[in-house]
Amino acid sequence: MSLVILGTVAFDAIETPFGKTDKILGGAATYISLAASNFIPETKILSVIGDDFPEEYLTMLQSKGANIEGLRRIAGEKTFFWSGVYHNDMNTRDTLDTQLNVLLKFNSSLPESYKDADFVMLGNLDPSIQLAALEQFNQRPKLVVLDTMNFWMDIALEPLVKVISKVDVLTINDEEARQLSGEYSLVKAARKILAMGPKFLIIKKGEHGALLFSEDEIFYVPALPLEEVFDPTGAGDSFAGGFTGYLCKTRDISFENMKRAVLFGSAAASFCVEKFGTERLESITPEDFSNRVQEFVDLSQVEIDW
Amino acid sequence: MSLVILGTVAFDAIETPFGKTDKILGGAATYISLAASNFIPETKILSVIGDDFPEEYLTMLQSKGANIEGLRRIAGEKTFFWSGVYHNDMNTRDTLDTQLNVLLKFNSSLPESYKDADFVMLGNLDPSIQLAALEQFNQRPKLVVLDTMNFWMDIALEPLVKVISKVDVLTINDEEARQLSGEYSLVKAARKILAMGPKFLIIKKGEHGALLFSEDEIFYVPALPLEEVFDPTGAGDSFAGGFTGYLCKTRDISFENMKRAVLFGSAAASFCVEKFGTERLESITPEDFSNRVQEFVDLSQVEIDW
Repeated sequence: MSLVILGTVAFDAIETPFGKTDKILGGAATYISLAASNFIPETKILSVIGDDFPEEYLTMLQSKGANIEGLRRIAGEKTFFWSGVYHNDMNTRDTLDTQLNVLLKFNSSLPESYKDADFVMLGNLDPSIQLAALEQFNQRPKLVVLDTMNFWMDIALEPLVKVISKVDVLTINDEEARQLSGEYSLVKAARKILAMGPKFLIIKKGEHGALLFSEDEIFYVPALPLEEVFDPTGAGDSFAGGFTGYLCKTRDISFENMKRAVLFGSAAASFCVEKFGTERLESITPEDFSNRVQEFVDLSQVEIDW
Repeated sequence: MSLVILGTVAFDAIETPFGKTDKILGGAATYISLAASNFIPETKILSVIGDDFPEEYLTMLQSKGANIEGLRRIAGEKTFFWSGVYHNDMNTRDTLDTQLNVLLKFNSSLPESYKDADFVMLGNLDPSIQLAALEQFNQRPKLVVLDTMNFWMDIALEPLVKVISKVDVLTINDEEARQLSGEYSLVKAARKILAMGPKFLIIKKGEHGALLFSEDEIFYVPALPLEEVFDPTGAGDSFAGGFTGYLCKTRDISFENMKRAVLFGSAAASFCVEKFGTERLESITPEDFSNRVQEFVDLSQVEIDW
């Protein structure tokens, strides 16, 4: 089993009603890799960093099973940086600063040792880079999962539609599903999006949970009501990491097993938001994970005597 | 078993993206009674109407088990009328017209035959009227459920807090829970609201489902993703009717049984929104109901092999 993760490895500076961070470790591939490491011994990261990226972050990622052969450091460049502030409801945020830096030099060429991977997670990134990465595998991977966002729908719809047509699972949020399909009803939106290529669609609804659609089935995992959400940054990526990590471990891509994977992804996201940045994800134990998943199961467990 | 329902019996004129109605049958007590009639042979309505209220509506309500001894017709007055238009997202609406009419003469005196009821549903109405009705029972009912809305929090908080302190279950939506508690986190909001008196709190989240809180337990029923929502009018009242009807039938007010009641309430609401006004509620068969509840159960059913 082998999981290749394409995505950013970055610096974030985050402000929420609970506090403010300096530049800390961030990036989609970072969160995905950390969440997936709860299920599989190795994740192969495909990303790019600059001179300024600290060695200690690499050591931490490696200690959590990250293979960084495909994480290229480009001399003379700075690491991608994002800074944002979350509003009181934690559902909306303003971007304060985005410095693409080294991302502009992203070379998606796949190391030889990555080319036989059978699970691929294409984290949120320019769809042209996602496409270029996907074309380099020796054979069609068993499962390709794609994450994207409204930004790419606005400025790069054509390559986005192309990459969507080539993947097995698409994960987006409810507003993005509506934008992509032009349908308000999520049932209708899902039908249109599945007709674009993917066999499965996951619609993430934040504090309202997540929906998994196939052509003829629907599954709804509610989100665990939390005392506090400290920092939503990386929640979607943690979801993707838990989801793909679980599938890669179990090697079963049936709808029934995807339902379980959505539950494990939701559990990963629920940990992520408990502390700033990657802090909580770095310290999850297997026991934490199984307890949390059980909480999700119990949350909507009910028995009817007819 | 006996269920008294306090609430409006009214005319509504509704506009949604799917169409527009003339004056049709509406009102909280109407929806609650119709939904509850799927579970119990009789509901006792406490409400008021004017000269203009058609006999045929009364006949229909009675055919669905409504006892209308407490539904007083006041000569020379017109029935309460509400008119509104829903926006495209169906989650927000504008009120076009509200004519209180006969509501201003509401006399909440309870018929003798209602005074031994053991289940009471106080539908959304002026909290002073809810209080006055509640004080007339011969003994404290086994279960009192209260529905209210932000409007009363704005203009009648004091009597509202008083009636909240006297009930067993409060049902409100997420924004109202936040307004009433001053807490954004629904977990914190629930804790504060339960400290105000009720043993159970139901937070309705529309297309995102419903949460049931007790002091130490949480249950989350996702909403069934629907192809179309034709008309959300009465969905909350239908929920309340399904919920209290099921509890009145089963006579078990444990948390476990409340979970089932939330499921039956959610099923009632999901029927309600499928057509304009009360149309769909009037035609539900027991088979429709059990099929729909099974769909809710299946929607979030998942088994984990550890």
